Amino acid sequence: MSGPVIGVFDSGFGGLTVLRALLERMPQAEFVFLGDTARLPYGSKSQRTIARYAAESARFLVERQAAEYLVIACNTASALALEAIQEAVAVPVMGVIEPGAEAAAAATKTGAVMVMATEATVASHAYAAACRRRGLRGVEKACPLLVPLVEEGWTDHAVTEQVVRIYLDEMLAESSAAGLRPDALVLGCTHYPLLRPVLERAVPSGVAVIDSAEATAERVFLSLAERVAAAGASECDAAQIRCFATDSVAKFERLGSRFLGQAVGSVELVDLGG
Amino acid sequence: MSGPVIGVFDSGFGGLTVLRALLERMPQAEFVFLGDTARLPYGSKSQRTIARYAAESARFLVERQAAEYLVIACNTASALALEAIQEAVAVPVMGVIEPGAEAAAAATKTGAVMVMATEATVASHAYAAACRRRGLRGVEKACPLLVPLVEEGWTDHAVTEQVVRIYLDEMLAESSAAGLRPDALVLGCTHYPLLRPVLERAVPSGVAVIDSAEATAERVFLSLAERVAAAGASECDAAQIRCFATDSVAKFERLGSRFLGQAVGSVELVDLGG
Repeated sequence: MSGPVIGVFDSGFGGLTVLRALLERMPQAEFVFLGDTARLPYGSKSQRTIARYAAESARFLVERQAAEYLVIACNTASALALEAIQEAVAVPVMGVIEPGAEAAAAATKTGAVMVMATEATVASHAYAAACRRRGLRGVEKACPLLVPLVEEGWTDHAVTEQVVRIYLDEMLAESSAAGLRPDALVLGCTHYPLLRPVLERAVPSGVAVIDSAEATAERVFLSLAERVAAAGASECDAAQIRCFATDSVAKFERLGSRFLGQAVGSVELVDLGG
Repeated sequence: MSGPVIGVFDSGFGGLTVLRALLERMPQAEFVFLGDTARLPYGSKSQRTIARYAAESARFLVERQAAEYLVIACNTASALALEAIQEAVAVPVMGVIEPGAEAAAAATKTGAVMVMATEATVASHAYAAACRRRGLRGVEKACPLLVPLVEEGWTDHAVTEQVVRIYLDEMLAESSAAGLRPDALVLGCTHYPLLRPVLERAVPSGVAVIDSAEATAERVFLSLAERVAAAGASECDAAQIRCFATDSVAKFERLGSRFLGQAVGSVELVDLGG
């Protein structure tokens, strides 16, 4: 097999939801995943720090793992460090914000879109800007409790349902005050797809729940379809996945499968010097 | 004034609850505080990574800020990196675990103590070991949602009360299964003192809530009392506090006052190269 090596990067394991969506579309491709777990979460840090961490991580995937295409499977890094990453490496780079906004544009009829994300993603207003470029209004809400709730394993728990409803109610009240009637909700963090059942129950009827991971995987697939097809993988080839983490591989191996939907296999420890 | 410069270190701002307790006892001393906010939280990371980060932070306080005494105002770093810190610097180092266990020993009559802490602190079993050395039984519980709840500002919120009760009930059930009747609860994380009102309401009657921050400040005060007195500060001297952070000083300045109980003043950004 000689298709392109696809690098997938996240601050933690959340980005494995993007890798999962990529695998569904390209079950015979070669993937290298890096979780910068020693320095997570990015979502509560500053732009300067996030850009430095993300550029180092991108260089690892391209220079040391020969990735020829880079997927930034992290909303915070996509929102705050896409340019820094593009400057750091010489391969095509795809973030999750633009595909997410594009999917929201395709889904909304009212032109108003809600976005749940981390503190840093919301502070960057990257989704609001991406919505505005498409003639849409984006209402963003920082939901810092959702990542810890997912990592605690409370993905279908009464407390999580309550927290989700509090965040949603605040967003709906804010929309209403601005005269907006949003009919789409973008999951602006790669941890949130695990909360999809809770979120689907909590949103008002008629509101579409949009997963940036799915939208991004589709865009990557379309960009690479020709090269993947030209590589002429045979029916029996399986995807190759190598996972790296900057901290505790045991925790990565234990939690990662929840996000990937299959065992992550053995994870290699890497030191980025941070 | 020529009393000792006291360095206080935490992964974030939580350690400001220890600084607050120190200030109450030594209102005329000189303090240098460092929050390693670019790499927080330590609580979910591995021993190796925590030890490296903590040693770098300790060196900054001693070598670059001339601290003559070091307080590790972070349970995770005290549990996992106290030796690494002691090897890294040549001044006395006080962690929060031993004072916390000592205070629990003074409070308990049944000899059984509950400890709420981060994932990494619990995995280290540092509190259980410190209890065992005093002939006590320690029941530890990782409570990873409490720090995010405090940082979201939900310190007196129905959701927080519910989460606290879930963690407590699990700990009480585990104690009961082991034939123990704990009558003390140690707050094994410097964020938790902000949850004290909620915790006081949630614990069964007769259970004492013990704040490691208070116990640690008392021990530091006793160690330094002579030197502080000898420095002969006049009644009009006020404490000098300089705060440093490795990330976003704006967030530190905004959130820090909740923990310190007064404005933190201007915070200086420092780069530890991580």
